[in-house]
Amino acid sequence: MNRNVSLYTVGQIVKLEGLLLVLPLIVSLCYAEYSLVRAFLLTIAVAIGLGFLLTIVFRKSRTPMYAKGGFITVALSWVVLSLVGALPFVISGQIPSYIDAVFETVSGFSTTGSSILPDPAVLGRGLLFWRSFTHWVGGMGIIVFMLAVTRPESGRAIHILRAEVPGPIVGKLVPRLRDTAKILYLIYFALTVAQVIFLLCGGMPLFDSLVHTFGTAGTGGFGIRSSSIGGYSPYLQWVITIFMLLFGLNFNLFYLLLLRRIKSVFKSGETWTYLGVVVVAITLITVNLLSQHPQLSEALRLAAFQVSSIITTTGYATADFAAWPELSKTILFLLMFIGGCAGSTAGGLKVSRILLLFKSIRRDYERMVHPHAVGVVHMDGKRVDDRTLGGVTVYFALYMMILAFVLLLLSFNGFDLVTNLSAAVACFNNVGPGFGEVGPTSSFAGYSDFSKIVLSFAMLFGRLEIYPLLIALTPAAWTKK
Amino acid sequence: MNRNVSLYTVGQIVKLEGLLLVLPLIVSLCYAEYSLVRAFLLTIAVAIGLGFLLTIVFRKSRTPMYAKGGFITVALSWVVLSLVGALPFVISGQIPSYIDAVFETVSGFSTTGSSILPDPAVLGRGLLFWRSFTHWVGGMGIIVFMLAVTRPESGRAIHILRAEVPGPIVGKLVPRLRDTAKILYLIYFALTVAQVIFLLCGGMPLFDSLVHTFGTAGTGGFGIRSSSIGGYSPYLQWVITIFMLLFGLNFNLFYLLLLRRIKSVFKSGETWTYLGVVVVAITLITVNLLSQHPQLSEALRLAAFQVSSIITTTGYATADFAAWPELSKTILFLLMFIGGCAGSTAGGLKVSRILLLFKSIRRDYERMVHPHAVGVVHMDGKRVDDRTLGGVTVYFALYMMILAFVLLLLSFNGFDLVTNLSAAVACFNNVGPGFGEVGPTSSFAGYSDFSKIVLSFAMLFGRLEIYPLLIALTPAAWTKK
Repeated sequence: MNRNVSLYTVGQIVKLEGLLLVLPLIVSLCYAEYSLVRAFLLTIAVAIGLGFLLTIVFRKSRTPMYAKGGFITVALSWVVLSLVGALPFVISGQIPSYIDAVFETVSGFSTTGSSILPDPAVLGRGLLFWRSFTHWVGGMGIIVFMLAVTRPESGRAIHILRAEVPGPIVGKLVPRLRDTAKILYLIYFALTVAQVIFLLCGGMPLFDSLVHTFGTAGTGGFGIRSSSIGGYSPYLQWVITIFMLLFGLNFNLFYLLLLRRIKSVFKSGETWTYLGVVVVAITLITVNLLSQHPQLSEALRLAAFQVSSIITTTGYATADFAAWPELSKTILFLLMFIGGCAGSTAGGLKVSRILLLFKSIRRDYERMVHPHAVGVVHMDGKRVDDRTLGGVTVYFALYMMILAFVLLLLSFNGFDLVTNLSAAVACFNNVGPGFGEVGPTSSFAGYSDFSKIVLSFAMLFGRLEIYPLLIALTPAAWTKK
Repeated sequence: MNRNVSLYTVGQIVKLEGLLLVLPLIVSLCYAEYSLVRAFLLTIAVAIGLGFLLTIVFRKSRTPMYAKGGFITVALSWVVLSLVGALPFVISGQIPSYIDAVFETVSGFSTTGSSILPDPAVLGRGLLFWRSFTHWVGGMGIIVFMLAVTRPESGRAIHILRAEVPGPIVGKLVPRLRDTAKILYLIYFALTVAQVIFLLCGGMPLFDSLVHTFGTAGTGGFGIRSSSIGGYSPYLQWVITIFMLLFGLNFNLFYLLLLRRIKSVFKSGETWTYLGVVVVAITLITVNLLSQHPQLSEALRLAAFQVSSIITTTGYATADFAAWPELSKTILFLLMFIGGCAGSTAGGLKVSRILLLFKSIRRDYERMVHPHAVGVVHMDGKRVDDRTLGGVTVYFALYMMILAFVLLLLSFNGFDLVTNLSAAVACFNNVGPGFGEVGPTSSFAGYSDFSKIVLSFAMLFGRLEIYPLLIALTPAAWTKK
């Protein structure tokens, strides 16, 4: 691979991060948080400085980039983004430990929302804004953003896009990749503005509306109160519920809607499965909750909010679901694995992968019964080739192996199996809160530094869908070949 | 499929069960347990009667049997075996509930060893013997046994063998299937006799030696004391440890050893992986246990016994491992999934499947890095074809889906996630004890009847490796075609 091309791109991205840090700087200025202003200014200096250093040393070359280079570039970018993005927390002294700050920043960019802060209110406004803004940036992908605003060489960009955008099949909406990135960000931006307006209409203050929208749009989940969304009005909870579900949809759908290709939207098997799972889960949990919350409207609202929050891997909470009846907890636990639709900002396995897994199982079942059957798998009317199908089942196996490995490493802590397992599942799937000691009313503060590093890697593995980081962590991949 | 052929075979198998029930009848006579003698006599009458009814009504036909018929025959046989085998418990009144008795019998035949009895000592000698004997019969497979002693039509038998013998690739040892079945049972019998002798030499009473050997050979795990193997001497514990590991090996290895093909034995990747995992797990747990058991020899013995018991899915215990430090518990939890080698009596995913999963992951990784790589997977020097490889990854996905479904159904009980998850994992992998409320010092008595039925199915799904029972449970599969 071409190391220069990768490091040049990383430099561009760090420069972009420096520019993005101007927004929380402005927030800090508005709230007269001068220690934060200093922290942001210093970080911006570091980011821009590092960015220029990299782009000057590894000057732009015309070497084409291949798949491996794309993976390594993306993995490296996300690691550097997080290491730099953690600086304001440490410089301001509001999160004194650098490992804690990196955990928090990785949790932000990866749209996980797991926090080492039992009460986020200890942070200043600027940092609360930055933390939530990392969700928004990480949700659609900062490299996709860069593609939208710069003029990349198309041969290089597709590999980067493949590595950063979630889901088993990456499609271009329009022939030119740059236009695809632009359309995605425009839809993302429009939905974000819509949600802010709906929240403002319900009486949520502007600052709260902005950070909660960032958390919803990126399916992240960082809140600004220890009660998450629990303290807000039912109207506001419903608005967030609906927008969480919207941001869990494949963004191609919104584009098709814009083009008025309603028929194509209705043909999407992934969308129907996603909505079906949501409706079934909400119904079961509502009924199950009636013993604790006899009022139907309240049980329904709690169920709908938590189900939407977990399946989209957002991680906001309006109830301490770790104290819910076992059936409800188990449903939420299983939803953590599913995640949202491919091509959304959500984490997890993605509904389309689950669908393809079931279709693979069905095909093998048919082959068992009729050994000479060929078995062709279709999705949304198109034939899915064997390599894609095989790739999905192997991805699932790899996913479970990494989960098992993370669980094993976490067990060096004294916590119980439920805490460790749900922490691993919640971080790897970019959900946020788990059960036990890491439930929605607690935090990840109790874990050792080693565990926090393990979980940070788990979050990045989850957000980048394993391969980019796995390849970057293999020494052999770095050799030129 | 040909319904007559299936039901005729089921009839033959129930007759065989009637014959096998003579052994516990003799035990009951020796111990003068006359109520049990009556129960066994009645059950033998039912078994033989039902057997003749089926074989006469569905007379032997010359219709060939295809894959589907093989699956359904095996699934049906195992269900009927369990339903009949449960009768002595109920007739004698020692397990009054039929559902409990079926759970116990399924647990026996499937070599799980999960029990609804907090203390097995409440059962008479004849029933204790029967319970453990079902392990021995279920371990190598009753249908394989029938193949060994009767003269099956070869075209029919291979489908039955494939459906009953665990592992991703079923091979014949010798050209004639009947000879393969005979060789397998002779090795099984020889190892069983050897273990009984070793146990007798250590001063274990004959009855105890027999039942514990049955439990070891079938990798079942039913004991006769609430302390399982904990009350026996260190020598006896080591003997059982070593034999558990032996019965977790692929039986082909013993055959190769008999033929003095030592080189082939050393080439087996599965064996080395199995032994490697065992050594690493024992080492880690021994070190981890030193805080609770400062004497190295004791920590090593406890670790070796529990690791061997869990990875071979036997389920005997010499310690309450549910109270061990979290790292040890997590290692044991993960070992439950792995299981023993293919072609052994052990349950779980099987080491060869785990190996093939890793090889598939490696291949896809290579393809990611070099998109035009072809990627051929080898195992023990032979090329593994794409269909086998794909079958293994799809099996893994199906396995996890069924586990998730079992977990969901169990969550209707009030137990916590650790109890439900470990109960599902322990039953589905045919291990036996789990953690929490179903740990080695507790029992499955607390579960509802519904949960016991779910877990009984999970045990059968695990023992038959999913497809036979899944196909039998699909109404469409029963239609002639």
